[in-house]
Amino acid sequence: MEYINIASIPTELTPDQFSLVYNAFSLCIAAMFAAALFFFNAKSQVGRKYQIAIIISGVVVSIAGYHYFRIFNSWETAYTLQGGAYLATGQPFNDAYRYVDWLLTVPLLLIEAVAVLALNKNISRPLLTKLAIAAVLMIGTGYVGEVADSITTRAIWGAVSTLPFLYILFILWTELSQAVERQDNRVKTLLNGMRFLLLFSWGVYPIAYLLPELGIEGATATVGVQVGYTFADLLAKPVFGLLVFSIARVKTQIDETQAAEPHSVTATNGNRAEELVGSTQ
Amino acid sequence: MEYINIASIPTELTPDQFSLVYNAFSLCIAAMFAAALFFFNAKSQVGRKYQIAIIISGVVVSIAGYHYFRIFNSWETAYTLQGGAYLATGQPFNDAYRYVDWLLTVPLLLIEAVAVLALNKNISRPLLTKLAIAAVLMIGTGYVGEVADSITTRAIWGAVSTLPFLYILFILWTELSQAVERQDNRVKTLLNGMRFLLLFSWGVYPIAYLLPELGIEGATATVGVQVGYTFADLLAKPVFGLLVFSIARVKTQIDETQAAEPHSVTATNGNRAEELVGSTQ
Repeated sequence: MEYINIASIPTELTPDQFSLVYNAFSLCIAAMFAAALFFFNAKSQVGRKYQIAIIISGVVVSIAGYHYFRIFNSWETAYTLQGGAYLATGQPFNDAYRYVDWLLTVPLLLIEAVAVLALNKNISRPLLTKLAIAAVLMIGTGYVGEVADSITTRAIWGAVSTLPFLYILFILWTELSQAVERQDNRVKTLLNGMRFLLLFSWGVYPIAYLLPELGIEGATATVGVQVGYTFADLLAKPVFGLLVFSIARVKTQIDETQAAEPHSVTATNGNRAEELVGSTQ
Repeated sequence: MEYINIASIPTELTPDQFSLVYNAFSLCIAAMFAAALFFFNAKSQVGRKYQIAIIISGVVVSIAGYHYFRIFNSWETAYTLQGGAYLATGQPFNDAYRYVDWLLTVPLLLIEAVAVLALNKNISRPLLTKLAIAAVLMIGTGYVGEVADSITTRAIWGAVSTLPFLYILFILWTELSQAVERQDNRVKTLLNGMRFLLLFSWGVYPIAYLLPELGIEGATATVGVQVGYTFADLLAKPVFGLLVFSIARVKTQIDETQAAEPHSVTATNGNRAEELVGSTQ
């Protein structure tokens, strides 16, 4: 049987097309490792019980940085500059790196999002189990579609993959909301931002995934898919991690205020979210 | 359409020209990573609320170190030694690394400069938003000029790029001055040094950028632009970071003095800046 991969790369790219993907990958390597250095060094800025979430943020962007390094090298060896155009060398461009990355990082991102809330174990454990299983199913079924031989198979597995994604959103908007009901309004506002960032950034992946279904083919599809995935990864990992860091800082500040003035517990519950994103001390 | 890039590299360099750029890049790699090691290890020397600024300094020089590593490799593969001269191999010298670097580091440098002042969030947030947007506009429009086909287009986009630069200077000299009005005179003196270093080092970039406009062409222009950008990056990142570190140390010292003798708050406000640059324990 011949191997026809709908997501396989085009035989020719213009220098601008090749460079756009190349520089997007390089930017992503720099951003991921920069974020890792930030999270590992800044973890001491938050209270001890929130540090695990920041450490996981650092681990996630480190895993992504490693994979973008591989993806960058794979892209570089997949093409060669000849007569003013980039021609495919015949070396495969390895799509599996992305899926291996997501398989490791997506459950970690969900753990990170729940860990920063420092919920009671009775509440957080079942939440995390559901989210992690759904994440693995989402990525596994998506990968089957990504390497599928036909556009129809790709569409079917893409649809199957959407079900666990919707389940994750359902859990985040129902059970997680109940779990944080008694938290400070500032935390709720940031948590809301975090959920919408997750919805928005994770929503970019299916759009990039769907490009071949929409009749966008060849060089444009490849450039669109690769730049789209890269942009989504930047939002979903370093930017998401910064939002988690903001939540940890606000919660640390609330804890410190409460420790200093035990009577003012209810006072901190006012709607002062606008003053606090990224504040310290 | 043929691809004519005014910033494209000359077909031949003398060994001295090639080596000057090559060694400047290598020096820069060493300086950036050395500075990163310093900032990440020395952050504990300053008070907790100033540590974020030092961590960001470390992140900035790490990002720059990564990009100089890439730039160095790109320079190396762009030329080959033949018959006593360095001839272009046909492999492109990737100018985009610099712009990707600036896109990530310039907003971070401005955040670093404001973060070390530990201002009230109500003051720092609008300041940072304006500065970050202006920085992205400055670099984006500059890049359009850098890769332009003609010297006229380069000049026009260079001029457009100057407007957000002037706006950044305006913000730093007006709003930031008001924001630090009540800070200690020693801090004000160091802040002034930081602003002038920023003006001076960022001023080198447009000069390097303008070399092709001034009729300086070929090998001399390329060597001038590359060495100029490298020199400017050394001032704008590690040296700038050291100045931020000095401010953090002085402010830490003031905080500790005030905590020890709460009555002497106003006494520390005297003009003793000359005694204090870089002092602490």
